[in-house]
Amino acid sequence: MFKNVKTIVVLVLLSSFGLNAQNKVPVYLDDKKPIDERVEDALKRMTTDEKIAMIHAQSKFSSPGVKRLGIPENWMTDGPHGIRTEVKWDEWDQAGWTNDSCIAFPALTALSATWNKELASLYGKSIGEEARYRNKNVLLGPGVNIYRSPLNGRNFEYMGEDPFLTSKMVVPYIKGVQSNGVAACVKHFALNNQETNRNTVNVVVDDRALYEIYLPAFKAAVQDGDAWAIMGSYNKYKGQQCCHNEFLLNDILRKEWGFKGVVVSDWGGVHDTKQAIYNGLDMEFGSWTNGLSWGTSNAYDNYYLAKPYSEMIKKGEVGTKELDEKVRRILRLAFLTTMDKNRPFGSFGTQEHADAGRKIAEEGIVLLQNNNNILPINLSKTKKIAVIGENAIKMMTVGGGSSSLKARYEITPLEGLKKKIGNQAEIVYARGYVGDPTSNYNGVVAKVSLEEKRSPAELTAEALKVAKDADIVLFIGGLNKSPNQDDEGHDRKGLELSYGQNELISQLAKVNKNIVFINISGNAVSMPWIKEVPGVVQGWFLGTEAGNALANVLVGDVNPSGKLTFTFPVKLTDNGAHALGQFPGGDEVVYNEGIFVGYRWADKQKIKPLFPFGHGLSYTTFAYGKVTADKKQISAGDKITFSVTVKNTGSREGSETVQLYISDLKSSLPRPVKELKGFEKVSLKAGEEKTVTFTVDKTALSFFDDKKHDWVAEPGAFEALIGASSADIKSKVGFSLQ
Amino acid sequence: MFKNVKTIVVLVLLSSFGLNAQNKVPVYLDDKKPIDERVEDALKRMTTDEKIAMIHAQSKFSSPGVKRLGIPENWMTDGPHGIRTEVKWDEWDQAGWTNDSCIAFPALTALSATWNKELASLYGKSIGEEARYRNKNVLLGPGVNIYRSPLNGRNFEYMGEDPFLTSKMVVPYIKGVQSNGVAACVKHFALNNQETNRNTVNVVVDDRALYEIYLPAFKAAVQDGDAWAIMGSYNKYKGQQCCHNEFLLNDILRKEWGFKGVVVSDWGGVHDTKQAIYNGLDMEFGSWTNGLSWGTSNAYDNYYLAKPYSEMIKKGEVGTKELDEKVRRILRLAFLTTMDKNRPFGSFGTQEHADAGRKIAEEGIVLLQNNNNILPINLSKTKKIAVIGENAIKMMTVGGGSSSLKARYEITPLEGLKKKIGNQAEIVYARGYVGDPTSNYNGVVAKVSLEEKRSPAELTAEALKVAKDADIVLFIGGLNKSPNQDDEGHDRKGLELSYGQNELISQLAKVNKNIVFINISGNAVSMPWIKEVPGVVQGWFLGTEAGNALANVLVGDVNPSGKLTFTFPVKLTDNGAHALGQFPGGDEVVYNEGIFVGYRWADKQKIKPLFPFGHGLSYTTFAYGKVTADKKQISAGDKITFSVTVKNTGSREGSETVQLYISDLKSSLPRPVKELKGFEKVSLKAGEEKTVTFTVDKTALSFFDDKKHDWVAEPGAFEALIGASSADIKSKVGFSLQ
Repeated sequence: MFKNVKTIVVLVLLSSFGLNAQNKVPVYLDDKKPIDERVEDALKRMTTDEKIAMIHAQSKFSSPGVKRLGIPENWMTDGPHGIRTEVKWDEWDQAGWTNDSCIAFPALTALSATWNKELASLYGKSIGEEARYRNKNVLLGPGVNIYRSPLNGRNFEYMGEDPFLTSKMVVPYIKGVQSNGVAACVKHFALNNQETNRNTVNVVVDDRALYEIYLPAFKAAVQDGDAWAIMGSYNKYKGQQCCHNEFLLNDILRKEWGFKGVVVSDWGGVHDTKQAIYNGLDMEFGSWTNGLSWGTSNAYDNYYLAKPYSEMIKKGEVGTKELDEKVRRILRLAFLTTMDKNRPFGSFGTQEHADAGRKIAEEGIVLLQNNNNILPINLSKTKKIAVIGENAIKMMTVGGGSSSLKARYEITPLEGLKKKIGNQAEIVYARGYVGDPTSNYNGVVAKVSLEEKRSPAELTAEALKVAKDADIVLFIGGLNKSPNQDDEGHDRKGLELSYGQNELISQLAKVNKNIVFINISGNAVSMPWIKEVPGVVQGWFLGTEAGNALANVLVGDVNPSGKLTFTFPVKLTDNGAHALGQFPGGDEVVYNEGIFVGYRWADKQKIKPLFPFGHGLSYTTFAYGKVTADKKQISAGDKITFSVTVKNTGSREGSETVQLYISDLKSSLPRPVKELKGFEKVSLKAGEEKTVTFTVDKTALSFFDDKKHDWVAEPGAFEALIGASSADIKSKVGFSLQ
Repeated sequence: MFKNVKTIVVLVLLSSFGLNAQNKVPVYLDDKKPIDERVEDALKRMTTDEKIAMIHAQSKFSSPGVKRLGIPENWMTDGPHGIRTEVKWDEWDQAGWTNDSCIAFPALTALSATWNKELASLYGKSIGEEARYRNKNVLLGPGVNIYRSPLNGRNFEYMGEDPFLTSKMVVPYIKGVQSNGVAACVKHFALNNQETNRNTVNVVVDDRALYEIYLPAFKAAVQDGDAWAIMGSYNKYKGQQCCHNEFLLNDILRKEWGFKGVVVSDWGGVHDTKQAIYNGLDMEFGSWTNGLSWGTSNAYDNYYLAKPYSEMIKKGEVGTKELDEKVRRILRLAFLTTMDKNRPFGSFGTQEHADAGRKIAEEGIVLLQNNNNILPINLSKTKKIAVIGENAIKMMTVGGGSSSLKARYEITPLEGLKKKIGNQAEIVYARGYVGDPTSNYNGVVAKVSLEEKRSPAELTAEALKVAKDADIVLFIGGLNKSPNQDDEGHDRKGLELSYGQNELISQLAKVNKNIVFINISGNAVSMPWIKEVPGVVQGWFLGTEAGNALANVLVGDVNPSGKLTFTFPVKLTDNGAHALGQFPGGDEVVYNEGIFVGYRWADKQKIKPLFPFGHGLSYTTFAYGKVTADKKQISAGDKITFSVTVKNTGSREGSETVQLYISDLKSSLPRPVKELKGFEKVSLKAGEEKTVTFTVDKTALSFFDDKKHDWVAEPGAFEALIGASSADIKSKVGFSLQ
């Protein structure tokens, strides 16, 4: 009503408050400028205090931006299988939010077992969307540490024993995550292959094993995946903590590989200010302020890279060159994530993500043994199904350490089976045994009832009774997320199943020979009863849709196509580290087995595993043709292509992962019998045949010569082996390098 | 190393998971499309459950977006004087974050007292930047309720008694906030002019007062400010709660004014599902789940606009047309805020914002009385300054209700004076009296020590002793943020100062005539000792830089230029509402004074106030010329311009706010003696003269004819009055409307 009243005196202009300068965009905010220019512009505007603040945490999972310049905070999230629930500012306790129930994706062991790079991409894209929607700009994952021993409590978070496979699977995961403007933080760099003494153990490893086995996945993450962040590991290497390790971070990561991203400490992995300054670390997280407050009002001021650093600068003990470098990298992270205006908005807890997780789970499940075609369950002939075992009813997204999740929902195997089978057959359940009370350092308790009041004998009796009458027995056991099972911070005590499962399975197999063992785990277990049990399925930790995925495979709606990405040894000493008595060590652990990890050890020692690397059956059968090469010899700059036909000789559609191994017939240094250098998953209709081809160059023939400190492809004779697993070589073809 | 290994089999495409559809941007995510089109596209993708979720809170201050579609959550923040600290998910308790210490800006009473629209813009821009950096997309402010009674406990949050002034000040505030992609949520709509019985009281007011006094600021906010959100008020109007009021929200806000933004409930202001569905509310917040959980696992499901609504839909009792309308408006809010990719990143707790706050504070401070030029303090002649009063040391950013803040810092008056004066004079302090223990519904306690162990007599004796020796006495008292002072949820009990301040001031004035009373308040107080105290300063609640701003004015580094935006009556019954016994009412409060609020009442009743509306002195003096008009009569479509010269006749630079009042000499309905229709703040160097001009049209001459339900400018004689306050008219000029 009054809007036409006009005042026309020119007012005092408040130019000093910037009202008139709104249209001048500073360089660091101008996204048409190159990132490096923006970084330098922002850096030069920052005070030393602002820089110091930026390189260490302010809470359990966040670090400051620059409030004055509008550079947002960094918010990290575990990872790697889902977006962790919100916790309190400076406590591990959950904050009690109700908007943070995520989709739990299958553990990375399950992803790698798909041998499907498209699914790695889908996984990364989906989890990245979840992180983005929750306003997290750094996902603390993926984990790519190599499976050295089946006792490592954290193997379930990783992608198996082979550096080539892990390298190929990690790259699309990273790209998928980062397509959301969320950084992948690849962990744990490096040599974090056990949980025992993880904060103190010094890993002794030769350069060949380091470069050939333990580093390739990280290098691929950096160079092919363009990972924007890497997390240092807890352990030591060459006597120095890996979170500030001059060899790993300065020499290898930055100088050799040209990494431009940020190095984030593992939570509490920083132990020394000077080393943290000089040895490549950028962001310090999780130093143990937990309720302690080292002496000032803000415990975070006492982080190694907080006041201790700024005081050294003030005293002139250290310069600011390294500080500027750290801040440059963190600013770059901001421009790639929080300040990328064009990043998508993400999505969270969606059915689309649950479906993606189920698809990955279905392709990751491995049919290890299927005598008499006991699987899939023939519902037309099955009246009663006995489901036995605690893991049929146990929440596996809870527990296990930092990967513990508050999932929007989790379908347990029993739920999945009941839903799938409906009225087609009767399902009877018996727990059979009771596992450890579940607890982990987050204080989260599994939702399964632990108040079992019956005695072991009563539980066994019930299970035997239930099994006896059934047409088929599904024993759903394995490991769980309790300490000394598959759990961060602890290693397993042995290869055996716990809680009397072996004895129970043997007894069950005696009363009903139609028995299938479904191993819910992220690790190999021994199976002393293997000849008594016709069906064995590797079921992993499958996340939100676990039970649905398992049920789909067990009834045959999905044809299994997963293959193992680590060796199942018959006994612990069939593993190199254990054969040599080098696990877990004490203050020091010596990797005396060198490059002979996993199938490389089994091949070398001619040990027949329980189930070999690369193994996995299908409900159909495949026939391989003979592999051919497009040339007989190549020179250093050449490529060579191998071709092989694969035919589905069964009666239903299925997928087969064809594996290419290379064997160096003679070399100046000892080499593995063979090494994986290619794989391809191919889908075939019943009767269909396809030709699979692999093209490699000399990099596939190379080994790391520690004396030359370089990769060498020695001229001479090689073989290309085509296998359905590392122990099932279908054919081979020779060729030579000039 | 392995990057040249190439696999060339075409993989199974996962098109069902959208990997191939990444480049197709859906309409709702395409910011090149018009917002209305994007809204319709998003709406048609949503399920009813998603829509229901979106229209009510999920926590104390947030509401869901659409997780599946990537539409972010809404996060609200008090407001209106700074960004409220983070609280726990479903509790008012602070969450204990350390990154949320804001800049506390001066209370809006102080902003309005600047009479400076540029400063309102600066305020809005600055607080909007703070909200944006903290990822809040709705700022719960500004408050524009009209100052009806000096007892209203929440007056300090508003902008005074005049609808024209408030309208002019609110618009740049809103635009400033919203330039950050943060919605201003103008509150409390409407007629929330007291705290007593605020949840239940039914306000009875005639249409003239409603349209002329209580609504104009809201209308300006909507039509000139383009506010994206409005908050309903707690009280009732026409017997209906204002958060779902068909008269205010449907008829006036939406139909008459064309408001397109969202209506947000005040926290706990919703009382009825059907009314909330039909009467214009869009988002329900703060219904009292507080730890109670009405019966299900998620108390928020029991919000009026949650399950009760969806159940009515399922039963067919209500349709979904209104639901879609609400969701459309919330989607529009998202596109304007969280989903505007080009919004800036904000900044938080910065010195720039503190400086802006100090500038506003300095211009808002009002020099009410300055007999014998007692101010500014002449430091060349002053050896000892006695500072007396609790408010000299009291944190005023804490308490008072929802506007309570965790400020990065707050300079108290005593600190500010000590810093400013340094060694130039001795400052001695005595508390003089003790106020109430501070508490508010947030459980936050003021940081001043409340453990005063001395008796009132001892405190008085100390103050008198200190005052006696001093060259000047600064009594820094007034109100505080405790219940029944300036505090949300309570009204004051009287116009008098509490805690024996009046008696103390009288005694102090007897021992030292050089005494200045600095009134820290957001309300008028009575001053029975006014003739004994030469200096009176209105000091407001000034935020982070309070003490610095006050000190700058007291020593004369800043020349005061604030003017009152509400009348200081001598006694309570000099106010219309109180004269007629219509405050606070019971179940009902009747605004029998009608349009005669503030100076309109004083003018009509010929009551001389203690200090009139528009009053404020300077350390310099101004001489006004005679006002002239560019024509003698105008027709309905014309404009008329008034000009007046103002000269700085003193010896230092200063600013004067020139006020234009219009007087309708004869009208069919009773009209106020005069009404503010223009103001301009002009800065003048010593000796400088400027011409101030005001151009108005018939809207400035109009009144609201409740019979015609329209604004009417009646032909006849008018006068334009130019004043330095509403009681200090310098000259006038007549004109007529044909």
